[in-house]
Amino acid sequence: MESALPHGGDLGAARRLFPGAPEPFIDLSTGINPHSYPLPRLSSDVFARLPEPAALGRLAAAAANAYGAPSAGHVVPAPGTQILLPLVAGSVPPGRAAVLGPTYAEFSRVAALAGHEVAEVAEIHQLKDTDLAVVVNPNNPDGRFFKKDQLRDLANALERRSGLLVVDEAFMDVGPAGASLAGEVERRNIVVLRSFGKFFGLAGLRLGFALTAPALAARLAASLGPWAVSGPAIAIGEVALGDVRWAETMRKRLDGDARRLDSALTDRGIEIVGGTSLFRLVRVPAADALFRHLGHAGILVRRFAEQPTWLRIGLPGSEAAWDRLRASLASFA
Amino acid sequence: MESALPHGGDLGAARRLFPGAPEPFIDLSTGINPHSYPLPRLSSDVFARLPEPAALGRLAAAAANAYGAPSAGHVVPAPGTQILLPLVAGSVPPGRAAVLGPTYAEFSRVAALAGHEVAEVAEIHQLKDTDLAVVVNPNNPDGRFFKKDQLRDLANALERRSGLLVVDEAFMDVGPAGASLAGEVERRNIVVLRSFGKFFGLAGLRLGFALTAPALAARLAASLGPWAVSGPAIAIGEVALGDVRWAETMRKRLDGDARRLDSALTDRGIEIVGGTSLFRLVRVPAADALFRHLGHAGILVRRFAEQPTWLRIGLPGSEAAWDRLRASLASFA
Repeated sequence: MESALPHGGDLGAARRLFPGAPEPFIDLSTGINPHSYPLPRLSSDVFARLPEPAALGRLAAAAANAYGAPSAGHVVPAPGTQILLPLVAGSVPPGRAAVLGPTYAEFSRVAALAGHEVAEVAEIHQLKDTDLAVVVNPNNPDGRFFKKDQLRDLANALERRSGLLVVDEAFMDVGPAGASLAGEVERRNIVVLRSFGKFFGLAGLRLGFALTAPALAARLAASLGPWAVSGPAIAIGEVALGDVRWAETMRKRLDGDARRLDSALTDRGIEIVGGTSLFRLVRVPAADALFRHLGHAGILVRRFAEQPTWLRIGLPGSEAAWDRLRASLASFA
Repeated sequence: MESALPHGGDLGAARRLFPGAPEPFIDLSTGINPHSYPLPRLSSDVFARLPEPAALGRLAAAAANAYGAPSAGHVVPAPGTQILLPLVAGSVPPGRAAVLGPTYAEFSRVAALAGHEVAEVAEIHQLKDTDLAVVVNPNNPDGRFFKKDQLRDLANALERRSGLLVVDEAFMDVGPAGASLAGEVERRNIVVLRSFGKFFGLAGLRLGFALTAPALAARLAASLGPWAVSGPAIAIGEVALGDVRWAETMRKRLDGDARRLDSALTDRGIEIVGGTSLFRLVRVPAADALFRHLGHAGILVRRFAEQPTWLRIGLPGSEAAWDRLRASLASFA
């Protein structure tokens, strides 16, 4: 087996793995919404000038409002949540970190870089006796979900030892209503991470947010410096985060797309074991064979080195892509 | 006196300081080229998809070629150089840091955040007995310039105590030919920082580079994570950095603009004490009065809290802006 790609979205690597595959290659290897938010017209100043503090403030206010954080002072805009991970991990003195897994591998990597002793644990109660606890909610790739009460209890337990709870809500835009912990970040030991690019289908823009109490928010912002977020990201982010109607319509559309994906998979006897409305996780004994079968048909899905029977499958973005996925699944022995 | 703005480019703050000023407000408070590189057409994928490793690799190769670094493996692309400063400062164990000043204030701030004891020193030989030495070359705001030999000697002296030399070449695009230290970064204790947005007039895009030996380059890249640079920045950066003809023509144009600015200033008896082709530094006994006079005329220049007789003045970007600057200077008593 070729080495598993460490992340989704690398069509260049997919083309090297499957050189004869038909084009256009269809990327179902990420959880990024294929129906991108329509790009507004951007003034050339957005590219030319340094982003101004007032514009960043408006973006933070739009994010606080959209995500339900107490105020703009609880919001740290960043060029994607990825770049926040080492800063958040480094905001706690090196100690014991635990990541509820299996999940996105970057948490363990950056926690170790920040000097923590890192464990991946399987149950939420195992996070209690740590200095840094990471929960992805809903989880990627299995969609495992925790209610607010469970996370509040965890934050209480961590507080006794000045431990920090990091809740990555990268896929909460399509999670249960009212489930976000964003409203609780007045507490000093919670950081909620929100990704802009996944739900809005603009991952290349690089925009994400840490929501946390103002003291830590100010420290994170100081580490990022004054112009971490690009002019285009600020301009587009402010508009998109304020577009409540688009978000409501899109949530319904994605729910429908996800159910359609379920049908396409279960029609072929493929077991769905989890996911969110932006991706499904399937368990297939011959996962590697299915990965290759789809790959040769020009469809990239996500494998997991540690979980050889899993595949994560994102949403097709066009009828042509749906047709090719259905046809390829139908011809899988 | 109102508190000095900590950075240039904040027209929102300028409008609050000078509420009756004519519009459009002219921003001469930065060293950003007003003649921006023409934006190429961007595919929607550039915004929608996660940037691919191959695209980042092409950008790194274009930067290595444009700046004269030994290879793409010596290049760390980042969303602006600002965000690299804490990573570079943190790549050395906390110790003694020295910044050759007066210069851009962010170096001292981030070195202190990284745990260093920071001194601003006036002469290059005072940097030798440190763990982290920072030189901006040519310097902002005074244009002070060091030859390669001087910096090589400094790197040698630092090497004896495993000290790191950081050379910020933010304005080297308009510096003397052949003066960049980019070709020397095979040495283990040199980091050269290059800013994309200033010379190319695309500061809102957020793109910059660290050039350094591959081992440190890999560590810096690991801290930034896989998608630190936005899709638009990668796409535009690769095209612009490969456009040698534009760069050559622009250097000449900026040199001409800078001489024109000199005339406009010296015609009014204003003393020029330094700068680069992207800005001039002037010394004016009544600097605050001139700042206000220009501000009321809708022209923002840069003051310095620590140097009350200095003003930094960038290049007007249009004939209308030149006319307004000349007229405002002419009416200054």
